[in-house]
Amino acid sequence: MSEAPRDIENLIEMMAKLPGLGPRSARRAVLHLIRKRALLLTPLADAMHQVAISARECLNCGNVGVTDICEICASEKRGNGQICVVEDVADLWAMERGKAFAGRYHVLGGTLSALDNVGPEDLRIPRLLDRVATEGVNEVILALNATVDGQTTAHYIAEQLEGTEVAVTSLAQGVPIGGELDYLDDGTISAALKARKSF
Amino acid sequence: MSEAPRDIENLIEMMAKLPGLGPRSARRAVLHLIRKRALLLTPLADAMHQVAISARECLNCGNVGVTDICEICASEKRGNGQICVVEDVADLWAMERGKAFAGRYHVLGGTLSALDNVGPEDLRIPRLLDRVATEGVNEVILALNATVDGQTTAHYIAEQLEGTEVAVTSLAQGVPIGGELDYLDDGTISAALKARKSF
Ligand SMILES: [Zn+2]
Ligand SMILES: [Zn+2]
Repeated sequence: MSEAPRDIENLIEMMAKLPGLGPRSARRAVLHLIRKRALLLTPLADAMHQVAISARECLNCGNVGVTDICEICASEKRGNGQICVVEDVADLWAMERGKAFAGRYHVLGGTLSALDNVGPEDLRIPRLLDRVATEGVNEVILALNATVDGQTTAHYIAEQLEGTEVAVTSLAQGVPIGGELDYLDDGTISAALKARKSF
Repeated sequence: MSEAPRDIENLIEMMAKLPGLGPRSARRAVLHLIRKRALLLTPLADAMHQVAISARECLNCGNVGVTDICEICASEKRGNGQICVVEDVADLWAMERGKAFAGRYHVLGGTLSALDNVGPEDLRIPRLLDRVATEGVNEVILALNATVDGQTTAHYIAEQLEGTEVAVTSLAQGVPIGGELDYLDDGTISAALKARKSF
């Protein structure tokens, strides 16, 4: 792509690596930003610097926020004994948009995957087991994606919690096969949560 | 989207407005950047600031570069009497990737559009006519997209050049109906250029 000057080429290459973008959409996005550089490019760069400084991963649950312990973990109201386990923060946000869940979350940071060589120690699974043992938890809701890796991970966690007194449930009705939470509308997530079944 | 902290929400909203991104892919991209903030987010913000400072639109042709007159306009070698007229800089880059064109460009900055209320004075058409009159041009190659607006614009420019001694040609074979240049592979563009016909 040597047709653009080095600075611009460099920016396009960085943008092209973002999930959901490729070389073509990165070129379009960068040209759009250059055309409106005072209005868009400088403010966007500033917003990125701001987030680079302020963003934190919650030490308890893995949620993204601006404090070491996220607002949900810090809120007494959310301490109802339920923990909803999700793969990533986008799924947590999708659940929150659904406004159907009043407990806390646990963000695994991915799924177990033999193919990608991801084991339990690569995810936040040990920390989940700690929380279950110490946080007065009575229900763990497995809100993992309906993919093979998501369900393998759900089964692994359920096994680890066998013999404890914690109820292990999973989202049921409404999550399509192969579906990812973050693609679903809020009503679907809400219905799936209400119809959750024992795992 | 009140589930993310203000700074992060703000960044997601800005990213979601970029062409090719939407709210969902913006959330994914921002989470990805936050997870690797030292490695990706800060360098990306820096690259944006750099481009915001250095980027210029060529005063002659509308190409994007880091100088007031772009490298192509400044190069004696490219002054072969041909001007290739494109809608936007992404199309210019697509032509350059094709390595089939040795002349200069003229970037209109869009197309005529009755619907969007875009007239000739909103594009770089007056400047094109100036260049044709003063730059020793013998051929204007209309490399506009094969859309209704693209072809309307091509006809308008051809009309303006009637009565001059400049040959007006257009890309022919290989550009699919409704096709946009920036989507085509390099070979297709090269073939279309070689087979250009009188307009
Ligand atoms: Zn938390
Ligand atoms: Zn130029």
